[in-house]
Amino acid sequence: MLLYNAPDPAPNPRRVRLFLAEKGLDIPMRDLAIVKREHKAPEFLEKNAAGQLPALELDDGSAIAESIAICRYLEALHPEPSLFGTTPEEIGRIDMWLRRAENMLMIPVGMVWVHTHPFTAGLGHQFTDFGETNKTRAAKAMHWFDGQLEDREYLAGPGYSMADIVLLTTIDFALWIGLELPEDADHLRGWHDRVSARESVKRA
Amino acid sequence: MLLYNAPDPAPNPRRVRLFLAEKGLDIPMRDLAIVKREHKAPEFLEKNAAGQLPALELDDGSAIAESIAICRYLEALHPEPSLFGTTPEEIGRIDMWLRRAENMLMIPVGMVWVHTHPFTAGLGHQFTDFGETNKTRAAKAMHWFDGQLEDREYLAGPGYSMADIVLLTTIDFALWIGLELPEDADHLRGWHDRVSARESVKRA
Repeated sequence: MLLYNAPDPAPNPRRVRLFLAEKGLDIPMRDLAIVKREHKAPEFLEKNAAGQLPALELDDGSAIAESIAICRYLEALHPEPSLFGTTPEEIGRIDMWLRRAENMLMIPVGMVWVHTHPFTAGLGHQFTDFGETNKTRAAKAMHWFDGQLEDREYLAGPGYSMADIVLLTTIDFALWIGLELPEDADHLRGWHDRVSARESVKRA
Repeated sequence: MLLYNAPDPAPNPRRVRLFLAEKGLDIPMRDLAIVKREHKAPEFLEKNAAGQLPALELDDGSAIAESIAICRYLEALHPEPSLFGTTPEEIGRIDMWLRRAENMLMIPVGMVWVHTHPFTAGLGHQFTDFGETNKTRAAKAMHWFDGQLEDREYLAGPGYSMADIVLLTTIDFALWIGLELPEDADHLRGWHDRVSARESVKRA
């Protein structure tokens, strides 16, 4: 196996690296340079026709793309420790929460990135007014997650899971592009401190 | 169990109904009227704090939301016939393809819906120029899926899967809001005819 990776601050490859660190898995990696458009080069498009990172090349030369799909594949190969849940209810709740992190927060954060950030200005027309409204959406979503985290240690329940990895990588990317955690979001800030202190964060 | 549902054309509840029909599962349903904002009413927000449909209420009164998470929960309870795959590679590939359908097609289709459609005009400011560019993105994504479907029967491989359900519900919603399948997308059209002819589509 070979993991095609992009270094920080790219949020999706970091999801996989954190997952690997939590599982104690070691997979060879090759960094591609997004700024040099290496993920759009013909030899990579043969692996991942969608031209996105990360992608996991299997031993037969084919590849699995999409960060969460890569992690699910690896979890099926190496079930312990579980990050996607083991009982039907855990499986459902963890997927619900990681999808909420994606749909409610990562989508507006991505729109802020694409439509307002100087780094993406050359990649296509920026609808800056639309991008600005997504700053409000992202802040609102952070407040919502703050409320949800009031009564528990981790996003999907009492145990750390893939949902925490998705929310953490999303929030750290949001901070990197200049968004901020709301001042009064104590539960979200406490959770962020807790998951950021994990060994996996230092190693990934 | 009780499935909080919204009738067509809402694409996400239809994913769950198609999944249930393919699995031969029968779960009591209650329709909420999105136009009457019943999914934002306090008694429903107690079930699903995100205020979205569908949501599956469990026997303890708690609920699982997010269409794919609901289906994963039900698949874990009722593994046969599998729609999310059984081997690690099937599990990875099916999740990859259903995520590509969501990320590459459903997101732009949703932006067209929210930012250009008369039905959503009263719900918030429409960035119509941004919405229009998403028509181009959606058409480009359909072409891309057309190319990917050249060499196989179903989206994630030789067998029908959850990925087909996600692409079908997305495309049918795109058609409903006025987008069109590209004229020359023969593979995508063939696939669409094939999956639309299934018994589950008549029953769901």
